[in-house]
Amino acid sequence: MVVRRAEVFRDKQGITLFTGHPVAHIDRSAKVVGGKSLEGKPFEAPYDKLLIATGANPVLPEIPGIDLPGVMRLKTLEDGRRIKAMIAAQKIEKVVILGMGYIALEMCEALRALDLEVAMVKPGPRFLPWLREELAERVREEVITRGVAVHAGHRVERIETVGDGLQVVCEGLTLESEIVLVGIGVTPNSDLAGAAGVALGVSGSVAVDRRLQTSDPDIYAAGDCADAYHVVTGRKTWIPLALRANRAGWAVADNVCGQAVELPGVAGTAVFRVFDMEVARTGLTPQEAEKEGFEPAEKMIKTSSRAHAHPGSSPIYVSLVGDKKTGRLLGAQMVGREGVAHRINAPAVALHARMTVEDFSQTDLSYAPPFGPTWDPCLTAANQLLKVL
Amino acid sequence: MVVRRAEVFRDKQGITLFTGHPVAHIDRSAKVVGGKSLEGKPFEAPYDKLLIATGANPVLPEIPGIDLPGVMRLKTLEDGRRIKAMIAAQKIEKVVILGMGYIALEMCEALRALDLEVAMVKPGPRFLPWLREELAERVREEVITRGVAVHAGHRVERIETVGDGLQVVCEGLTLESEIVLVGIGVTPNSDLAGAAGVALGVSGSVAVDRRLQTSDPDIYAAGDCADAYHVVTGRKTWIPLALRANRAGWAVADNVCGQAVELPGVAGTAVFRVFDMEVARTGLTPQEAEKEGFEPAEKMIKTSSRAHAHPGSSPIYVSLVGDKKTGRLLGAQMVGREGVAHRINAPAVALHARMTVEDFSQTDLSYAPPFGPTWDPCLTAANQLLKVL
Repeated sequence: MVVRRAEVFRDKQGITLFTGHPVAHIDRSAKVVGGKSLEGKPFEAPYDKLLIATGANPVLPEIPGIDLPGVMRLKTLEDGRRIKAMIAAQKIEKVVILGMGYIALEMCEALRALDLEVAMVKPGPRFLPWLREELAERVREEVITRGVAVHAGHRVERIETVGDGLQVVCEGLTLESEIVLVGIGVTPNSDLAGAAGVALGVSGSVAVDRRLQTSDPDIYAAGDCADAYHVVTGRKTWIPLALRANRAGWAVADNVCGQAVELPGVAGTAVFRVFDMEVARTGLTPQEAEKEGFEPAEKMIKTSSRAHAHPGSSPIYVSLVGDKKTGRLLGAQMVGREGVAHRINAPAVALHARMTVEDFSQTDLSYAPPFGPTWDPCLTAANQLLKVL
Repeated sequence: MVVRRAEVFRDKQGITLFTGHPVAHIDRSAKVVGGKSLEGKPFEAPYDKLLIATGANPVLPEIPGIDLPGVMRLKTLEDGRRIKAMIAAQKIEKVVILGMGYIALEMCEALRALDLEVAMVKPGPRFLPWLREELAERVREEVITRGVAVHAGHRVERIETVGDGLQVVCEGLTLESEIVLVGIGVTPNSDLAGAAGVALGVSGSVAVDRRLQTSDPDIYAAGDCADAYHVVTGRKTWIPLALRANRAGWAVADNVCGQAVELPGVAGTAVFRVFDMEVARTGLTPQEAEKEGFEPAEKMIKTSSRAHAHPGSSPIYVSLVGDKKTGRLLGAQMVGREGVAHRINAPAVALHARMTVEDFSQTDLSYAPPFGPTWDPCLTAANQLLKVL
């Protein structure tokens, strides 16, 4: 997200900024990028060092009707404004969202706040499949309780115009609405890099080393278009999230300016809120851990968000994953109405430090009655996990 | 806190429980403890292994009037009930609290909720002196805004009866009230251990090794009466807090039963809430770090508790301490209206892992707009601290 206006870059920072100039090709031998401006003028720009920061594109399902007016994607600030304007201008009552990831879920909360009818649909049978089932179920309950229709396990076949509105025809289900929002994920926007012969990595993202250098030493890549090392596996992964994108941008600047900076990588720490539920994860799921050659054991605990005697408590669920072979902590997941968003950072730091579950279980975490039980839920989960490692 | 009743210990767990039997002496050569029961009967109990879990005692200032009715300490559940009953039974309007630690602060919040007039007084000039001054000032403002009179820098000389009430005569100040609460701290209750020749350690607490064994291999100590290793310094410290006490109790049980358990120690992680302010710390202050032979540098940052564009944000202050010689992270402090209590656990885990500030600055912490900026405040503070290390 560019939070500075173009003029600031131009006038205050002395950066020559070509907006409206989509790059169409990278000539690596001549060290030049070029294309045609939105006004139709061909342009070229030479480089000593090049940064590819092309981000990610929303995935659009290849179904009939995906181009109909009223079918909108969730990606840019402009997309958001367009959706907002349409809701304000027309008599919108019903919205269908394709997808149930956290962007889709955050969107459904915003739409329910406007009192719109919201239905979500996706082909896979499991809601938030990367979450342990009991945890995912808590989130699903919350979403349903807030009046959202959740239709998992229905492949979308086509979108059609019906009267003034649209209908989404799915396997075994047809949903009517005035707007259809597409939030089924993103893919790295690496076409330009790929076409120039820059090596691509996980999920088609641009492969970079710890200095964000691509296979071409004069070309760097950062942000949602680039891959990263996973601190748990040491192997490449593609987890497009804001902190890594931002951090990688800074690191490229340092490296280009001759100050060698290496980024250790990501732990895959993520959090979102949907209605009153906080959902967080870091590290690997048991399935991911198994694929990576670990021998995972998992333990879930349910406890209270506040101390026994403190009013206003709500359930909090913590699940930890450890490796039976080495005892290492591999991942964590949490769901609850409070105390989840920052609590995930304790296991995240432990993953960076390659701590064992036992070492993590011995950490001195904070306690006060309004904020948790004497034993932080992470510690209780670690103690339980130790018994099965 | 015993959350099980005596009958459960007796009937369900087969533990012979002598309540009302204060131990007066430990005979280490005969391996017997003894004393006189509250009913006046002498008793003795032999042991193979002994656990000293005598806790801590509130510090009572040696001033005239400290024994007057209406002067009450803040220690046991019974103390709390007594205070509550007195407020309910009599027409109490004003309370003076001696001390300004977090127990005193939590108490003043509870009393303000009952709409009582509250004044706090202490001899030292600085409010929360272990907190960096800008942070302490935020908390002091909050307490004052909530109608509490804060009198730091006034030595208490005596307490006197005046009419139906009391007056607390301080240097340069006299405060009237119906109740005086004493919350100026605790000391380890180690008299029994000391008298038996068991070695005492920091602040007069019972010295224990990582297995909670005292200088006598048949005697263990755990809880607020015992010391602990500090994970940052590797040296002994006395920080009486609930998690360590609880954890030490379990570890003694394991060790007594032949399952060798070593506790690495404490990081001094603590959190409390006073009114709408959360205050947390872990590790060393710059002053403590200097005393321990480190060469500390400190950096404080102020940022927002939520993302730029997210409504409901409030300021959050984070201060980190690092060692110039080794680059190690040594401590952290935070103050804010939200997002402090669990956020402190990330640096706490980093202290256990003996991370450098640089390593910590590279951790993958969670981000979502309702919960913080893209760069977690801990990371922003770490980045700033790196510049002065």
